Amino acid sequence: MIPAPYLLYLGHSTDFVGIKTSRGLAEFRRGDCVGEFRHDDSPLTLGLPRMTIAEGAAAGARTLVLGIANSGGTLGGDLVRDAAAALDAGMNIAAGLHQRLRDVPELAALAMEKGLQLFDVRDPPADMRVGTGYARAGRRLLTVGTDCSVGKMYTTIALADALRARGEKADFRATGQTGILIAGAGVPIDAVVADFISGGIEMLAPERTDGGWDLIEGQGSLFHPSFAGVSTGLLHGAQPEAIVLCHDPSRSHMRGLPGRALPGLRECLEANLQVARLTSPEVRAVGVCLNTSRMEVEAARALCRQIEADLGLPCTDPIAFGVEAIIDELLCTEPSRPATTASR
Amino acid sequence: MIPAPYLLYLGHSTDFVGIKTSRGLAEFRRGDCVGEFRHDDSPLTLGLPRMTIAEGAAAGARTLVLGIANSGGTLGGDLVRDAAAALDAGMNIAAGLHQRLRDVPELAALAMEKGLQLFDVRDPPADMRVGTGYARAGRRLLTVGTDCSVGKMYTTIALADALRARGEKADFRATGQTGILIAGAGVPIDAVVADFISGGIEMLAPERTDGGWDLIEGQGSLFHPSFAGVSTGLLHGAQPEAIVLCHDPSRSHMRGLPGRALPGLRECLEANLQVARLTSPEVRAVGVCLNTSRMEVEAARALCRQIEADLGLPCTDPIAFGVEAIIDELLCTEPSRPATTASR
Repeated sequence: MIPAPYLLYLGHSTDFVGIKTSRGLAEFRRGDCVGEFRHDDSPLTLGLPRMTIAEGAAAGARTLVLGIANSGGTLGGDLVRDAAAALDAGMNIAAGLHQRLRDVPELAALAMEKGLQLFDVRDPPADMRVGTGYARAGRRLLTVGTDCSVGKMYTTIALADALRARGEKADFRATGQTGILIAGAGVPIDAVVADFISGGIEMLAPERTDGGWDLIEGQGSLFHPSFAGVSTGLLHGAQPEAIVLCHDPSRSHMRGLPGRALPGLRECLEANLQVARLTSPEVRAVGVCLNTSRMEVEAARALCRQIEADLGLPCTDPIAFGVEAIIDELLCTEPSRPATTASR
Repeated sequence: MIPAPYLLYLGHSTDFVGIKTSRGLAEFRRGDCVGEFRHDDSPLTLGLPRMTIAEGAAAGARTLVLGIANSGGTLGGDLVRDAAAALDAGMNIAAGLHQRLRDVPELAALAMEKGLQLFDVRDPPADMRVGTGYARAGRRLLTVGTDCSVGKMYTTIALADALRARGEKADFRATGQTGILIAGAGVPIDAVVADFISGGIEMLAPERTDGGWDLIEGQGSLFHPSFAGVSTGLLHGAQPEAIVLCHDPSRSHMRGLPGRALPGLRECLEANLQVARLTSPEVRAVGVCLNTSRMEVEAARALCRQIEADLGLPCTDPIAFGVEAIIDELLCTEPSRPATTASR
C-alpha cells in the first residue's frame, strides 16, 4: 500500500488530460491529498493548496505522486530533480509512467539511502499465472465500454460507493494506473504479459465468501482493434454476474482511430455478454452509463430515457444523475427513483 | 536471423512433449539440422546423427538450439555448461526458454568474448506499438482453434507449402517459439505486453503488395479462458481474409482445464468470424483441419466427410490427407480432388 497523505505533482503540465492520474486522486481521494506541486509555467490546478516540496513534507505528505503523463512516459530533467528533492524531504515516490522509477539510478540510490519506497504502479505482480475460468464464489460486476476512456473508472467507483451506501460490502478493483493509485492496490492489466490477462483478473478479484461485491474496472473495448484482447481477458477473468456498459455520446470515432465508428449500444452489450458467458453463463447487463458532461442537462436526460426505452435497462450519467437505478437492477430491488429525474 | 545449420539439443529430456521445439526443427527444417545432442540418460531421438558439441561444430553447426522445455523454463546446471561448451566451440545459441540466455552472466560474457550471438526467441521486438485495425493491402490467412495445441502451427506450415507448390508466393508467419525457430523470425505473441497483441501481429504481417500470402500461426482459442485475449488480438491484428479452424477430435476437455468442454465446430467458427469482422468485414472460413493421428484412417476419413457435410467446408488432416481442398477453397478454384480420398 502506498502511504498517504499525498502531494500531487503537476510539474510543468499544461494539458488537463496529461494530469489525469493526479486529477483522479484529487477527485476520489481528496481527504488524502495535502496539496499540489507545480512549476510556475503550469496553468493548471486541482483546487488544492499549492506547496513546495518542503511545504508538502511539513504538511505531512508521505508520498509524492507523479500523477502525470509526459511524452513517451519517460523520466527526465525536472521530474527526476523534483522526485529526488521529495526523497530528500522524506517522502516516498509513486508513479505510473512507462519508465520505472527504480530504473533511474539516482532515485534508486537515494530511496535506498533514506529507507523510502519507490512505487512503480505499472509493475504487474511478480507471481502472475494463467487464468482457469473455473467458477469461484463471490459477486462481481465489470464495467465494459463502447470505447476506451468513456468513464469506466468513474462508473466503477460510483457503483462501489452506491453499494456501500446501501449497506453492502463493496470494493473497487482497479486495473489502470489511476485506479490503482486511488484504490491503493490493483493489477495494471495493460502491462501484464498477454498470457496472463485473465489470470491477472482472477488474482485481483479472487474467490469471496463474505457476500460482498467486487466492482472491477474495465479497460478498452471489444470493438477497439488495439485493445480488444485486453477487454476479452478481462471479461473471462472477471467472471462477472453483471456488466454495466459505459459510453460517451460525444465520441465521433474510436479513440485514436479517426474513421472507425463506435459500435451500437445493443451490439456492444450483446458481444460483451456473449464473451462473458464463457466463464459466467448467467451474466446479465444491469445498466448503461453515459458521460454527458458535454450535453445540456435536458438533452442528457432525454438521451438516457431513450436508451432506457430501447434497451430495457437503466441508463444514467453517474456523475450528473447518480447510479441508484442501476443498483436497484443489480440487487433486484424495486426501483427507488428513475435515474434521470434525480437532482444533480 | 538465426544462422543455420543447427545442432538440436535434447539434453536429459525423457518426455517427447518436452522437446517439441527441437522436434519441430527436425521436422520442418531437417535440411538445416546436422545432428542432435543428448546425454546418455535421454532415451529420445529425432532420427538425426547423435553428436557431441565438438562433433557438431566439426559438422558445420553454427547454432546450438536449446529446443527443450524444462521445468519452470529456467537455465541451470548442464544446460548452461552445454551452452558454454557450444560457445567455446564457436556456435551461437538459440533458446525459447522463459529465462533469457543473456541473463546468465557466464553465457553473456562468453558470447561477447567470442563474438557470437545469443538468441532469446521469446523476446518481443523492442519497438512494439498498439494496433490500429486500419485496412492494409495483402492476402492473409490465420489458423484458429477449438483449443491450444491442436495443430495450428503444422496446419499453417502445410498451407504455406501447398500454396508455394501451386506457384503462389506464400510465407509462414510465426507467433510461437517453435514456429519462430522454424521460420527464423516471428513475434512471440504470448510474451508481448497485453496492449500490443494486435499491434504485434500488424508488425509480423504488414502491408504486402506483391500478391503473395501471409499464413499466420494462430495461438490459443477464443474458447480457452486462459488465452482468449491473445486469440482475440491475433484475429484483429491479422485482419485475415480467410481462417482455417484446427481441432483435435481426441481432446476430452480444454487443455489444462479438466471439466471444461470444447466448443462445437460451428459455434467456434462463427465466434471467430464475428471477432475477425471488426478489422476484416469480408473474412470467410475456408476449411477445417483435424489432428487424426490417434484414429484409424477409415474413421478419420469418415469424420472429415461428416464435418464437410455439416459445415459445407473442406475438412482434412493436413498430415494424413494434405490440404489441397482447402487451397482450392482459398483460391476459389475448382476442387482438384476431395481431401479425404487423397492417399496417405
